[in-house]
Amino acid sequence: MPEIERKFRVPDPPPDLREGIRLRQAYLAVDGDVEVRVRDQGGTFLLGVKGGHGLERTEVEVEIGAADFDQLWALATGRRIDKTRYPVAAGGHTVEVDVYAGPLAGLVVAEVEFASRGDAETFTPPAWCGDELTGDPGWSNASLAAHGRPD
Amino acid sequence: MPEIERKFRVPDPPPDLREGIRLRQAYLAVDGDVEVRVRDQGGTFLLGVKGGHGLERTEVEVEIGAADFDQLWALATGRRIDKTRYPVAAGGHTVEVDVYAGPLAGLVVAEVEFASRGDAETFTPPAWCGDELTGDPGWSNASLAAHGRPD
Repeated sequence: MPEIERKFRVPDPPPDLREGIRLRQAYLAVDGDVEVRVRDQGGTFLLGVKGGHGLERTEVEVEIGAADFDQLWALATGRRIDKTRYPVAAGGHTVEVDVYAGPLAGLVVAEVEFASRGDAETFTPPAWCGDELTGDPGWSNASLAAHGRPD
Repeated sequence: MPEIERKFRVPDPPPDLREGIRLRQAYLAVDGDVEVRVRDQGGTFLLGVKGGHGLERTEVEVEIGAADFDQLWALATGRRIDKTRYPVAAGGHTVEVDVYAGPLAGLVVAEVEFASRGDAETFTPPAWCGDELTGDPGWSNASLAAHGRPD
């Protein structure tokens, strides 16, 4: 499915974050606009490809077995992300608040997925969202994993 | 599964090639030792990752749906391979003879997969196999797709 997503910096996360899912992800390949990653999403293992850039991207994600995950994880040394994702309801949408751990500890980012570009454009982010990062390549998870924070 | 494979140039293909499977594949990302491709293998759609180089590589391949295949195929413009693969029995193994079409027409390559490094090392290729290409990055399918033949 094409993915339509907006992304914001969160300077001070909202106090009511509960029941997060830990996500470990590692980038296998980043080539032009295409990123390929493996993800451990609370014990579900996924292989995903994202392509294109900006508001609307191609995204395909498929479940893989634990043994395949372990092999692929081992290929991606040094380009890994460890974060906990908390869903927060806001403006009729679910805002996913990602609290990073490991080398990126202290970073908090909010992502919102939309069914259409119109929905994305009319969405008003909650007050605790800061600067918009949508389409900024330095704030992609692939870039964060490889190079750390751009600021 | 780790993949143990040897690869040979075939100057003159054996005359008894029958019942080949057409393979269309496209490279989504090539990053260091990691290659990510989609493949249409006679109507079965696969997403695969290979890592490492030489005789033994990490390989993970998962089946995907036709709609996901179409989306990923569209991301990989200009890095595509079209070939027909013919299995040939030789020396107790199956040699896969790949006859390329499209921009690589005229190229024929043989690949043999082995269960162990010992099997790989003691294998004697059939007389119609020419120069060994195992581990030569210029003859990888990813490189052929992006840059054409190295000779």
